[in-house]
Amino acid sequence: MESAQLLDILGNENRRKILHLLASRPCYMSEIAERLDVGAKAILGHLELLERAGMIEASTDEQRRKYFHITDNLRLEVFVSPYSFEVEMTTVAVSAPQQQILANPAVKSLKSLYNEINDLVEKREHVMQEYQDIQGIITQTLGHCMDVIEEVADDHIEAEILYALLKGPMNKRVLSMHLGIPEYVLERYIEKMEQKEVLKRDENNYIIG
Amino acid sequence: MESAQLLDILGNENRRKILHLLASRPCYMSEIAERLDVGAKAILGHLELLERAGMIEASTDEQRRKYFHITDNLRLEVFVSPYSFEVEMTTVAVSAPQQQILANPAVKSLKSLYNEINDLVEKREHVMQEYQDIQGIITQTLGHCMDVIEEVADDHIEAEILYALLKGPMNKRVLSMHLGIPEYVLERYIEKMEQKEVLKRDENNYIIG
Repeated sequence: MESAQLLDILGNENRRKILHLLASRPCYMSEIAERLDVGAKAILGHLELLERAGMIEASTDEQRRKYFHITDNLRLEVFVSPYSFEVEMTTVAVSAPQQQILANPAVKSLKSLYNEINDLVEKREHVMQEYQDIQGIITQTLGHCMDVIEEVADDHIEAEILYALLKGPMNKRVLSMHLGIPEYVLERYIEKMEQKEVLKRDENNYIIG
Repeated sequence: MESAQLLDILGNENRRKILHLLASRPCYMSEIAERLDVGAKAILGHLELLERAGMIEASTDEQRRKYFHITDNLRLEVFVSPYSFEVEMTTVAVSAPQQQILANPAVKSLKSLYNEINDLVEKREHVMQEYQDIQGIITQTLGHCMDVIEEVADDHIEAEILYALLKGPMNKRVLSMHLGIPEYVLERYIEKMEQKEVLKRDENNYIIG
């Protein structure tokens, strides 16, 4: 699945409700329709879509009734700022089971597993805070870059070229596609900018400075 | 804005394309329509929706033509697994400008800012890896909990109660709303489970163990 497909799926409130419900337990279609107060036909359509996307799977119980559960371990991240719109989807690897935990007596285990989860959630929050701090500094630094680019660029095409190259080295063709500007037009700008030493060639790519 | 509204917004391909374009530079409506090859009326509808949600803002140039830019600094994260469906939206704080960087000569600055961003992006990737590792262990531990819950629960309602309490302490009312089970029904189960010592009362809340 691609991130665009996942965003299309998550863009529907009832599909989000279905995933929320299935995350608490596997459910029959009739249960889902009842809990969401939505017609069975509409629910079926959503379930089929989720199944085709590989997010859920159906199993059959002893009475041959179908029930559904979530199969995926997906993480989607979207970051929107004045200088960036990034969408990233990753499959989260689940580590191999720890034999030791499974060997504990059941009741004691549940409590200790519960404490373990709480510790992990706290740790996850700290790491997320660190991540957001870095993201904040990146956004701030990109803001500085915009100021500097406005100073060094003679026009808005030069500015766009520099801004595109901030994302990484690009060759002429990629740059042309990225900016929607024909290569022969770009060439004249690039030449001038090389002379000004605001960009330079690195093998086939162009990079900042 | 709430995370559900953001997911609704991001669930449309053309809106994603508009945000992608505005993240590279502020644009006029006509530019957006041309680049996306979509009618001006449809683009206007999307822009109005994005503006109402506070994600973009319009400014006016010298010729009184409106152009749009992204105003938000948002991070959205969705995590889907067999045991969880979590959606989290955060506003990313942008740190105060560093006077030192702005004082550098412009051309040299752009290159040093570029290197700085590359370092930060690398650091961000490491932190994200750490985050995903923790998320993986949480998912795995929740999987273990499900196994243990199946062992200690006498029926599926007991299992659902225990699973709900894994997310944190809950009082009877919250538990009832969360599970869609009336309080008087829950009471009987809770009493039995307290005797079995799989859950206990902590002031008004119930917790695991």
